[in-house]
Amino acid sequence: MRDVFVLGIGQTVFGKFPDRSAHSLGREAVGAAIRDSGIDPRELEVVKTARMLDSTTDSQKIMMSFGVTGIEMMNVENACAGGSSAVHSVWADIATGRYDVGLAIGVESINSRPKSGPLSASEDLEAELGQHMPGLFANLARRQMEVFGATREDFAEVSAKNHRHAVHNPYAQYRKEVSVEEVLNSTMIADPITLLQCCPNSDGAAAVILCSAEFARRYTTKLIQIRGSSLVSGTYDFSQSETTLFDFGTMATEKAYTMAGIAPEDIDVVEIHDAFANEELLRYEDLLICERGEGANLLRSGATALGGRVPFNPSGGLLSLGHPLSASGVRVVADIARQLRGDSGGTQVEGAKLGIANMLGGVATGLQGGACSIQVLSR
Amino acid sequence: MRDVFVLGIGQTVFGKFPDRSAHSLGREAVGAAIRDSGIDPRELEVVKTARMLDSTTDSQKIMMSFGVTGIEMMNVENACAGGSSAVHSVWADIATGRYDVGLAIGVESINSRPKSGPLSASEDLEAELGQHMPGLFANLARRQMEVFGATREDFAEVSAKNHRHAVHNPYAQYRKEVSVEEVLNSTMIADPITLLQCCPNSDGAAAVILCSAEFARRYTTKLIQIRGSSLVSGTYDFSQSETTLFDFGTMATEKAYTMAGIAPEDIDVVEIHDAFANEELLRYEDLLICERGEGANLLRSGATALGGRVPFNPSGGLLSLGHPLSASGVRVVADIARQLRGDSGGTQVEGAKLGIANMLGGVATGLQGGACSIQVLSR
Repeated sequence: MRDVFVLGIGQTVFGKFPDRSAHSLGREAVGAAIRDSGIDPRELEVVKTARMLDSTTDSQKIMMSFGVTGIEMMNVENACAGGSSAVHSVWADIATGRYDVGLAIGVESINSRPKSGPLSASEDLEAELGQHMPGLFANLARRQMEVFGATREDFAEVSAKNHRHAVHNPYAQYRKEVSVEEVLNSTMIADPITLLQCCPNSDGAAAVILCSAEFARRYTTKLIQIRGSSLVSGTYDFSQSETTLFDFGTMATEKAYTMAGIAPEDIDVVEIHDAFANEELLRYEDLLICERGEGANLLRSGATALGGRVPFNPSGGLLSLGHPLSASGVRVVADIARQLRGDSGGTQVEGAKLGIANMLGGVATGLQGGACSIQVLSR
Repeated sequence: MRDVFVLGIGQTVFGKFPDRSAHSLGREAVGAAIRDSGIDPRELEVVKTARMLDSTTDSQKIMMSFGVTGIEMMNVENACAGGSSAVHSVWADIATGRYDVGLAIGVESINSRPKSGPLSASEDLEAELGQHMPGLFANLARRQMEVFGATREDFAEVSAKNHRHAVHNPYAQYRKEVSVEEVLNSTMIADPITLLQCCPNSDGAAAVILCSAEFARRYTTKLIQIRGSSLVSGTYDFSQSETTLFDFGTMATEKAYTMAGIAPEDIDVVEIHDAFANEELLRYEDLLICERGEGANLLRSGATALGGRVPFNPSGGLLSLGHPLSASGVRVVADIARQLRGDSGGTQVEGAKLGIANMLGGVATGLQGGACSIQVLSR
């Protein structure tokens, strides 16, 4: 396997853009990534685009505006880990030597869709009985409280922390601090999860250009490497589980860290899937930053806030930066690359040399198919 | 790149199954492929599933029934070439040595969906103005008639031929002969395309297990090799074109034939995307079986019917076997592998040693993103 590098990054502001199509958002992110990389887009050899809702031949439709056609293009879906799956797939194409340069795109347009409609024949009995995402994560939160002593205030502090971070991120949907009290007093969604502990519905896109070492050296001396990439499927069924463990989360961690040859203490900065505030504590544990059950203590120590030992979600995370589903898995890679370049402005983790981009995906309902993907980046 | 082999194939009967979910169909096809291969499903290292409509984490949800989790899974979309894209992607995983054995699945459930509903904000101006698939292919048919002297009877004969083939295919949606007259006299859809020159709306699934030579030899001595695989993006816009050429079709042909080291005259049997009858004549040309514009003459010679020099769609093709969108790209690989094993019963091409599986995909509307994928198989 060859070394793979992040040559270009781009993203849109995240927010509610009901008048913009997914492809319009995608073009904006791709244009930014191309300008950032300095390449001629016709040098691209492979393009993979992730989109969860209303996916079509999105790669082709976005890239037509850049005069890019006649190359390998595919479109991928893996719930909220779709963007990471596109990154992982292009990473594999370059790592194995099939191609020298490729583009991974994540796009989502939630707010341009009709509000609801009939679903296909499904096997989603749990969904019909009310097992939606907030309910699933509320079950998890209850167990975190009962088994590990996490408190409602801990969960609220995750949201307050990530909102503090997002104030400094020009791409964020919400750039406003919220206090622990405001989080706790916001509308109850699924006890103990309140509104301000849920990520918003967001539109947006992100894109990253990956390439071989030889290709990268033609354009930059600031090499940002993907040292390891993993993608692991799993189940997502906590209603029948006695643990808070995402088994596929820890499997993805082991694979990526082993490939990269790193230990948890090497990590300087992390971007993760904080779809609900309590989830962030579990990510600390799945990523081996602390022992199982110690997530709340790690948060309380301040280690995971900007200025701490290993900041999580300096971008603001899904909770405050926003969560355009398939875009998030590409955005976390772009954010970590930006951190390692030292270009993150007010959200910069000083001296960051090694970072983790992690995205979890899954459908809470029915047969609960999930995926976890991790990229280890270093300068 | 390593040699890649087809170890197991499976498919459902194609037809209208409004009471079955896509995952139920997928499980049936996967079960058949696993039994056909002889492997323990837990040996699988990677799974990729194509689904065009209502895609979700389909790989995970289908494979859960087989106790398969914790491995790399992804879901792909590339319009009607989605199934081929899943095959191509798993082929690449094995050819590059990332994995030794993997599964590609194509599923589609059209008839279990609500008939229509509001669409997302789109840029599909052409669709709103009436440029749907039959209209696009009718434009092509007009040009085939005007420039190359193809006739309405030629197009109708393609449908009659493929319906004759499907009579012998136990998986086919329509196993009934139709005459050229019946085809011509069926309801006019988009002149000159009549109803019996359009593929039906079908539900169904197909699955293929691919592996390395070393892995295959543990299970079989009848090795069916994928000697070349290509996937090329392109545009699909014939309203503004003066040719009948699918440029990305010929690019995919050149890539796949070069990789496989074959010439067109080596080919014994072909399965293609005959979404509309006239399209089959263009595939003869894009696949270099005859010169540009000679498609109708090749058809009239009988070369492409069962018993001819190079039968096209002995399965019955999309026109008669049926076309469950993303399933078709996997199904064509399964059908060619079955031919090369000599297991195709009444649709067998005697002595077939080398075959082509080809699928075209695209969205007729708006920005017209298309894809063409070709697999060259041999025994």
